[in-house]
Amino acid sequence: MNSFGRVFRISIYGESHGPSVGVIIDGCPAGIAISISDFEQDLLRRKTGITGTSSRKETDIPTIQSGVFNSCSTGSPILISFNNQDTDSSDYENYQNTPRPGHADFTAMKKFNNFNDYRGGGHFSGRITIGLVAAGVIAKKIISPISIEVKLIQAEGSDDIETTVKNAKGAGDSVGSLIECRINNVPVGLGEPFFDSVESLISHLIFSIPAVKAIEFGAGFATATMRGSQCNDLIENSSGKTRTNNSGGINGGISNGNEIIFRVAIKPASSIKIPQETYNFSTKKVEELLIKGRHDSFIGVRALPVVEAAAAIALADLLLTYKNN
Amino acid sequence: MNSFGRVFRISIYGESHGPSVGVIIDGCPAGIAISISDFEQDLLRRKTGITGTSSRKETDIPTIQSGVFNSCSTGSPILISFNNQDTDSSDYENYQNTPRPGHADFTAMKKFNNFNDYRGGGHFSGRITIGLVAAGVIAKKIISPISIEVKLIQAEGSDDIETTVKNAKGAGDSVGSLIECRINNVPVGLGEPFFDSVESLISHLIFSIPAVKAIEFGAGFATATMRGSQCNDLIENSSGKTRTNNSGGINGGISNGNEIIFRVAIKPASSIKIPQETYNFSTKKVEELLIKGRHDSFIGVRALPVVEAAAAIALADLLLTYKNN
Amino acid sequence: MNSFGRVFRISIYGESHGPSVGVIIDGCPAGIAISISDFEQDLLRRKTGITGTSSRKETDIPTIQSGVFNSCSTGSPILISFNNQDTDSSDYENYQNTPRPGHADFTAMKKFNNFNDYRGGGHFSGRITIGLVAAGVIAKKIISPISIEVKLIQAEGSDDIETTVKNAKGAGDSVGSLIECRINNVPVGLGEPFFDSVESLISHLIFSIPAVKAIEFGAGFATATMRGSQCNDLIENSSGKTRTNNSGGINGGISNGNEIIFRVAIKPASSIKIPQETYNFSTKKVEELLIKGRHDSFIGVRALPVVEAAAAIALADLLLTYKNN
Amino acid sequence: MNSFGRVFRISIYGESHGPSVGVIIDGCPAGIAISISDFEQDLLRRKTGITGTSSRKETDIPTIQSGVFNSCSTGSPILISFNNQDTDSSDYENYQNTPRPGHADFTAMKKFNNFNDYRGGGHFSGRITIGLVAAGVIAKKIISPISIEVKLIQAEGSDDIETTVKNAKGAGDSVGSLIECRINNVPVGLGEPFFDSVESLISHLIFSIPAVKAIEFGAGFATATMRGSQCNDLIENSSGKTRTNNSGGINGGISNGNEIIFRVAIKPASSIKIPQETYNFSTKKVEELLIKGRHDSFIGVRALPVVEAAAAIALADLLLTYKNN
Repeated sequence: MNSFGRVFRISIYGESHGPSVGVIIDGCPAGIAISISDFEQDLLRRKTGITGTSSRKETDIPTIQSGVFNSCSTGSPILISFNNQDTDSSDYENYQNTPRPGHADFTAMKKFNNFNDYRGGGHFSGRITIGLVAAGVIAKKIISPISIEVKLIQAEGSDDIETTVKNAKGAGDSVGSLIECRINNVPVGLGEPFFDSVESLISHLIFSIPAVKAIEFGAGFATATMRGSQCNDLIENSSGKTRTNNSGGINGGISNGNEIIFRVAIKPASSIKIPQETYNFSTKKVEELLIKGRHDSFIGVRALPVVEAAAAIALADLLLTYKNN
Repeated sequence: MNSFGRVFRISIYGESHGPSVGVIIDGCPAGIAISISDFEQDLLRRKTGITGTSSRKETDIPTIQSGVFNSCSTGSPILISFNNQDTDSSDYENYQNTPRPGHADFTAMKKFNNFNDYRGGGHFSGRITIGLVAAGVIAKKIISPISIEVKLIQAEGSDDIETTVKNAKGAGDSVGSLIECRINNVPVGLGEPFFDSVESLISHLIFSIPAVKAIEFGAGFATATMRGSQCNDLIENSSGKTRTNNSGGINGGISNGNEIIFRVAIKPASSIKIPQETYNFSTKKVEELLIKGRHDSFIGVRALPVVEAAAAIALADLLLTYKNN
Repeated sequence: MNSFGRVFRISIYGESHGPSVGVIIDGCPAGIAISISDFEQDLLRRKTGITGTSSRKETDIPTIQSGVFNSCSTGSPILISFNNQDTDSSDYENYQNTPRPGHADFTAMKKFNNFNDYRGGGHFSGRITIGLVAAGVIAKKIISPISIEVKLIQAEGSDDIETTVKNAKGAGDSVGSLIECRINNVPVGLGEPFFDSVESLISHLIFSIPAVKAIEFGAGFATATMRGSQCNDLIENSSGKTRTNNSGGINGGISNGNEIIFRVAIKPASSIKIPQETYNFSTKKVEELLIKGRHDSFIGVRALPVVEAAAAIALADLLLTYKNN
Repeated sequence: MNSFGRVFRISIYGESHGPSVGVIIDGCPAGIAISISDFEQDLLRRKTGITGTSSRKETDIPTIQSGVFNSCSTGSPILISFNNQDTDSSDYENYQNTPRPGHADFTAMKKFNNFNDYRGGGHFSGRITIGLVAAGVIAKKIISPISIEVKLIQAEGSDDIETTVKNAKGAGDSVGSLIECRINNVPVGLGEPFFDSVESLISHLIFSIPAVKAIEFGAGFATATMRGSQCNDLIENSSGKTRTNNSGGINGGISNGNEIIFRVAIKPASSIKIPQETYNFSTKKVEELLIKGRHDSFIGVRALPVVEAAAAIALADLLLTYKNN
C-alpha cells in the first residue's frame, strides 16, 4: 500500500534510479497558498546533514504537475515530482546475489520474485522519502498554527553527536540516532479511536520511514516501571493543562491539548565500508561482501524533516477528519 | 474509525455499560472451523490475572450472531457479541465534572461535546478489548502455522513482578508493565511498503489498545546508539536466516523469515485508590478526587492476550493481502 | 466487502435464519437525537406492501446495542440489531443441489465452496436490507433538511400497478418494478470526483440492494439520443437553478443545487410458484424445480424505503466528507 | 476521492492545461510484461473517432515514471504520465463568469470557492480519462483471459450513427451515444457483496467517466416490466450456463460464469456551437453564451476504450481480491 490517509491522502511512487520520484496529495482543501519556494527549506534539510552525508548531488527541484493554479491549491490532486539524476546503478545488480545485511535486498527480491528494481535500492531507497517531505510541507500549512519541532537528542554516552559520527565515519562505519518530536498548539480532540488513535496514526506513518525501529509517546517505555500515582498527569485547568506530561499529550488516543511528544529510534545506516558476511545465492556460500559507492554514515540529521513531515501528515488527516465529528 | 484492515477487516463496537460489546469480522475466508469453545481460553486469559485483577464478574460468553454455519465460517461477516452485566454506573457521572487523571474522561467529553457515554469509561473502557481478543482467535486460525508467544518481562529493578504488583496494590497504587511478543514460522514477504510495513500495521493496532505508550521492534531503541557493523544482521543461508536479529525479523518493512520480535510498554492503570488533584468543572477549582469502585492494580497479565490478538489480526490482514502480490 | 463509506461508515451483517441481522454505523456525529420509535415508520414500510407481500411475521424491533446514550448519539459506533424469528429452513438445503433460477444459490455456493449459510438465502436474503433501512433513518437525520421522496412509477402498459401485481400473483408469478427517487434541498457541491461522483456513490449503494439491475440519473438513457442543444440545462440564476433538469441535479459528478432525480429498475422476485428448470447437482440432470414456501410476488413497495435509505446513506457520507473541502 | 480500488488501486491526477496528466497504479502484481507499445492502440482509440472529433493534436505518448523495470512490473507503484501540449486557455476564464450549460463550470467553481483550475475544464476535462485508459491496459493484462468487447449500439431512429453525427455536427450541435459492453471468460465468483457487488464496482467506475448518465446490466430497465417466469435465467449445466441472460451474468452481485453485459448512456457533449442562455455572474443577468474553440460533436467512439478500461479496472480489483476468499 503506497497510499495513506482518510481525508488528507497521499500516494507515493518512484524508485531511486528511475525517471522520477514523488507524491500525489489528494484531499488538500482548495485555496491553500503553494509555491515552489515553499519546499526549498525542508528539501534542503533532507538533502544535507552535518557530517557523513552522501556526496550524491541531488538537485531536488520539485515540479508541481497538477492541483495548483494561480499559486493556490485547487482542490484537485497535487502531484509533486522530482527527476532523478546523478545515479550510478553499477553496483546494485550484484546485490541481488549477495543481499546486503540490514537492507531490504533479500526481502524485496523474495517478495517480488526477483522483479524488483534493485538499482539504488529501488522503491526501498531513502530517496523515496522526498515525497513525504513534499507532502509534509503542504500538511504543515493545513495544520497551522499547530507547530512541530524535531531535534536529535543525545542517546547516551559521553561523546557528543558530532564526535560519535566522526569516529564511526573514520572507521567506515555508521551510527544510529534518536529523534524527539514536540508538537504544540494542538487542539483538544484529535484522534479517532478505537483504531485511529493519535499514536496509531503517527506510528503507522513513522514506521513507514526506512530504518525506524522504535517509537514512544510521553514517558514511553519508562511508564512500564512507573506507578500510577507517578504516571498520571494531574489536570490543572479547564483547558486540560496537565502538571506533568507522561501521556505525551494524548489520553485515550485523543489529543488533550498539551504538547504531543514522541521519540523515534533510527538504526544506523546499513551500508558500511567494513566487509560483512552474507549469503551468496550464486556460489551458495556465505562470503564476505564489501559495499562500494557513496553512502551516509549518519542519517539522523537528514531524517529530521522526514519525521516532521510524517507527523504533519498524520495530524493533517486527523484534523480534517475531526471537523466532521 | 472503529474499523481496521484491508482484506481481513474488523469493526468494533460497544460501551462498558451498554447492552453489549463485540466485533464484526469481515473478509474471513469460508471454511474455517469455528466454535464457541475456541474462544474460551483467550477470553479467560483476558478476564483473569495473577494479582490485582478487578473483582468484576464478567461471564464473557461470546454469541456468534452471523457468519458461522455448521461450525465453519461462511465467508459472510462474523458478528461476535458479549452481553454486559454486573455493571455499576453510579460513580461515573461525577467524572464528567472531575475528569480522572490519566483517563480519557476529559478528552472524550471535549471531543464529543459531553454526549459521550461516560459510564464505566464507555467506549474507552478496557472492556472493549474483548472484541479484539475474539477477532484474534479467528485471526490465529488464519495465520497458522505462524505462532505468537507473548510474555511479561521484568522491566527493571530487583523485585519480581508479583512482589512489585503486591506492593503497589497494598499502597492503593498501580504499576505498568512490559510485554514481549515473539512470532515464529513467519513466511518471507509479509508487509506492504511503502506505508503498510509490518511495523506500521502492528504498531497501528497495538497503539489502539488502551494504555500502550511505546513499541520497539528487534533491538528497538538500542539501535539508536549502535554502529552499523553491530546492528546489521548477517545473512547465513538461502532462506534468509540471520546470525543476530536486531531487525526483529523485518527489513524494509517486510518480514525476512526470522522471528518477529517486539516489545510494548503499558502504562500503569489510571484508576488508583490514592487521592489525586484534578480540575472540577463545577466548582471551577482544582480539587482532590478519590476514585471509588473496583479497579485493576496491574493490567499486564490481562493485556497479554490483547497484544497477541492485535499481532494476529495485523498478520492475518498482511497474509491475506500478500497472496495477491 | 460488507462496509461502505468514508466518513459516515456502515457495516452490515447477518443471515436470514441466523440469530440476528443488523448494522454498525460508525462516524455518526455526536449529539443526534435517536430513539427506537424513530425507526418504526421505515421498518414498517419495508415490512409491508400493498399486495403480494410475504406472510412471514417479522416483528422487526430494533435493539440499539451501542453508541446511543440519553437518547443521543455519542460519537461511538452504533450497532442496531434485529433478532430473527419465525424462520423455516426446511426447503433450503435442497437448493444447494438445485439452485433456484435468478437467485444467488449457485454463485454463493461456488464462491464460498459450499460453506455458505443457504437457509433462507443466508446473507443474500432481502432480510439483510433491514440494516440498510436502520442506517438510513440515522442518515436522514444527518442530511436534514435534504429531503428524499421515493415512489413507484408506472413502467408501461395500460394496467395500473395493483392490477399488474394481482394478475401475476394469481398466476403464481412475480413482477418487476420501477422506482423514482427525488432529492430536494441539496446544497451545491456534494460529490468527490474523479471517482466519487454523486452518481458513483449512489449507484454503488443502490446496486448493493438485491434485485436492482439498472439506474439512470436525470434524463438517463434518453440522453443517448438527445442532441446537446436539447440536453443541456440552461442556468437561470446565481444559485444555479436550471430551466430543465436532464442532468438530474448533477454536473461533473457534483450536485448543482437542483433536484437530484434517479430511477431504479428492480427485477421481479426470483421465487415463483411456477415450475422452472434448473440443473440438479445430485442427479446431474436438468430437472423441474418447484419452489415452496412464502414468497413475495412484488417487492416494489417494500423496496421503496430501502432505495430511500441507500440514497440517504450516500448523501450523508458525501455531506460529512464535503465539510472538509 | 481520486483513488479507486482495494487491492488493485489507481490514483488519477492532472488538469487539461496543466503540465501533465496521468495515473498511479498501485497493487499491480510483479512480473507483468509492460512496454510503451502496449498502450498505443487504446490511446489511439481514445484520441480519434469516426467523426466529429476534436482537432486538438495530442501526442499522447505515455512515460512510465516508476514501477516497471526490465519491461516487467516490479510490484511497486506504476506512475504513467502524459505531458500536455497544444493547449489554448484563452476562452476559459470567461466561463467562470458565464458557466457553460451542461458542464461542471458552475459546480466546480462553487465547490472549490473559485480556486479551481478552469482552463480547459481543468480536472473535469475528458482529458483526464487518459489515465483511466492507461490503467485499463494494465488491468486487461491482469484479468486475462477475461475479454472485454465494447461497441456503439444504435440507440433508436432510422438513421445510422454516422449520419446522425454528421447532421448534428452540421448544425453545430452534438449527440449522445449508447455503448454496450460484453465481458467473456469470466470465472464464477467475482464480486464481494453485500456492498461490493459486480454491478456496484462497475457502476461506481463507469459513473466517474464524464457524461455518463445511466447504466443497466442484462435486461436492465426491461426487467421492471417483466414477470419472474420470463426474467429468471434457467440453469442448464454444472458450470452454471443459463438459457437466457437477463441477469447480465451476475446473481446476488456475484459473477455466474455467463457473459457479463451492460449498457451505458453517454449524454451529448455539452460544448456546442449554438448560442445558449446562461447566468452571467458579472452582469447578474441571463445572457446568451457562444462557446468557441475546438470541441467534439460526438464522443461515443472515443468513450469506447474508456468504458472498456473502467470495466477492466473493476474486474482486476475484484479478481485480485477474490483470490483471498
